[in-house]
Amino acid sequence: MRLLRHVADLRLALAAATDTALVATMGNLHAGHLSLVELAGRHGRPVLTSIFVNPLQFGADEDFDRYPRSLEADCRLLQAAGCDLVFAPTVQEMYPEPQTYAVLPPLADTLCGAFRPGHFAGVCTVVLKLFNLARPRYAVFGKKDYQQLFLLKGMVRQFNLPIVMLEGETGREPDGLALSSRNAYLSATQRAQAPQLHATLRALRQRLLAGERDYTRLETEASEALSRQGWRVDYVALRSQRNLLPPAPEEKDLVVLAAAHLGRTRLIDNLELSLPVCGRAPRV
Amino acid sequence: MRLLRHVADLRLALAAATDTALVATMGNLHAGHLSLVELAGRHGRPVLTSIFVNPLQFGADEDFDRYPRSLEADCRLLQAAGCDLVFAPTVQEMYPEPQTYAVLPPLADTLCGAFRPGHFAGVCTVVLKLFNLARPRYAVFGKKDYQQLFLLKGMVRQFNLPIVMLEGETGREPDGLALSSRNAYLSATQRAQAPQLHATLRALRQRLLAGERDYTRLETEASEALSRQGWRVDYVALRSQRNLLPPAPEEKDLVVLAAAHLGRTRLIDNLELSLPVCGRAPRV
Repeated sequence: MRLLRHVADLRLALAAATDTALVATMGNLHAGHLSLVELAGRHGRPVLTSIFVNPLQFGADEDFDRYPRSLEADCRLLQAAGCDLVFAPTVQEMYPEPQTYAVLPPLADTLCGAFRPGHFAGVCTVVLKLFNLARPRYAVFGKKDYQQLFLLKGMVRQFNLPIVMLEGETGREPDGLALSSRNAYLSATQRAQAPQLHATLRALRQRLLAGERDYTRLETEASEALSRQGWRVDYVALRSQRNLLPPAPEEKDLVVLAAAHLGRTRLIDNLELSLPVCGRAPRV
Repeated sequence: MRLLRHVADLRLALAAATDTALVATMGNLHAGHLSLVELAGRHGRPVLTSIFVNPLQFGADEDFDRYPRSLEADCRLLQAAGCDLVFAPTVQEMYPEPQTYAVLPPLADTLCGAFRPGHFAGVCTVVLKLFNLARPRYAVFGKKDYQQLFLLKGMVRQFNLPIVMLEGETGREPDGLALSSRNAYLSATQRAQAPQLHATLRALRQRLLAGERDYTRLETEASEALSRQGWRVDYVALRSQRNLLPPAPEEKDLVVLAAAHLGRTRLIDNLELSLPVCGRAPRV
């Protein structure tokens, strides 16, 4: 496995590659990332993992500075997972001049975007840059960042990028907590409490599958349940998988998404579900 | 020469190409376009000319509907000019779904952007799509659309597109009028008057080279001269070639740009100039 720090080295290393599979990360890798690397390797070679904590997608009051950096440990994990190339540029290398061109995606001010202004423009912009640098045939993103995955798939489609988008399932701890680099911020008490987020989404899904259809009420009650347990809730939202908008009555393929804070740590999670069509068993 | 109407055909035709040279046009070709095609052919093959009147870059009250379409004549000219492939998609082919992702460039609300809201976002967005469809090694744009060329060069750089941008000089009629598809809108009287735009820029340049340095006064007087001749002036502006901003006092490489209307027809033009550095002859 080779570690590349410069754009010019990356271009050189990939000059003859036609089937590159890219996994874009911010490092501090966990088993969730590694499953994306393995998924990449089942589709294309070389497997390229980018590690870049992108300042563009952090708000002024967010955790850019304290976001954990652990390049050496990351490289050991990536090598063991079958990664071929690591691209870990500096901020100066990615933004040699102030980035004044941005990708403006839709739905950028809903769900997480409502609480993180500019976040999804920053994500789309850096991912477009990585796509243009690596020119992958495959790109892998996890379903844990559901809105991000949705928006990046749309970007690939609407900008006519010749890239196949692969979706990795969310990795979870045995108690249900979604794997996230930000879990490392949690105190022992918070860590014990953190699975409540996933549990709340599961409970909401159960009520839907049991036949409840008052979506607003379900969202509100789930949000209130988390608040009672000490969370500061950004949102709990039931959406259509198709367009991430509040589902029309006939919509069957739904996703419930949530973002909430434990202390200074913001966690997100989501669960897909399909409502039963008359005469069929529910698909969960 | 092959005429392609579909994205899938374009991808197929270019599957093995590594040195494609793209000339992006809105059709209704004149000698200015053809010189860009010839410039493309001196750098790469195949030479691909796209012909697409892009609705995204027209305002609601602009000339999208009446913009001249002349595909058959265009193809004859392109064949004679050495073009290999023409890509002429329908609006539906370029935008199979409503385009909700946009490229937001800087300086989009200055100069022409101040009078055409959304224009440069529309230009950057469609050109990015064409770049991703054709994956050219070279792309040719004319200096007549100076702000457009400036913004597209910046997009290529900041989005890390592996494309060499080539700049074509502005073609002119013998009387100085810059070649433009919109010249076809002019009545005989307007056509006789149209070279005043270029003449005004030349006069402004002469005053600069003669030593005048009150930039605002020069702009205002040039604008007033056009108004007196019956033009409705959008702007006459003296800018730095480097950043398209009002030039700092020490700035030597300047460009004077103008946009003005004769009747319903909006014309643009520009002239570069370099102020003399002490002891050197001026470069014009």
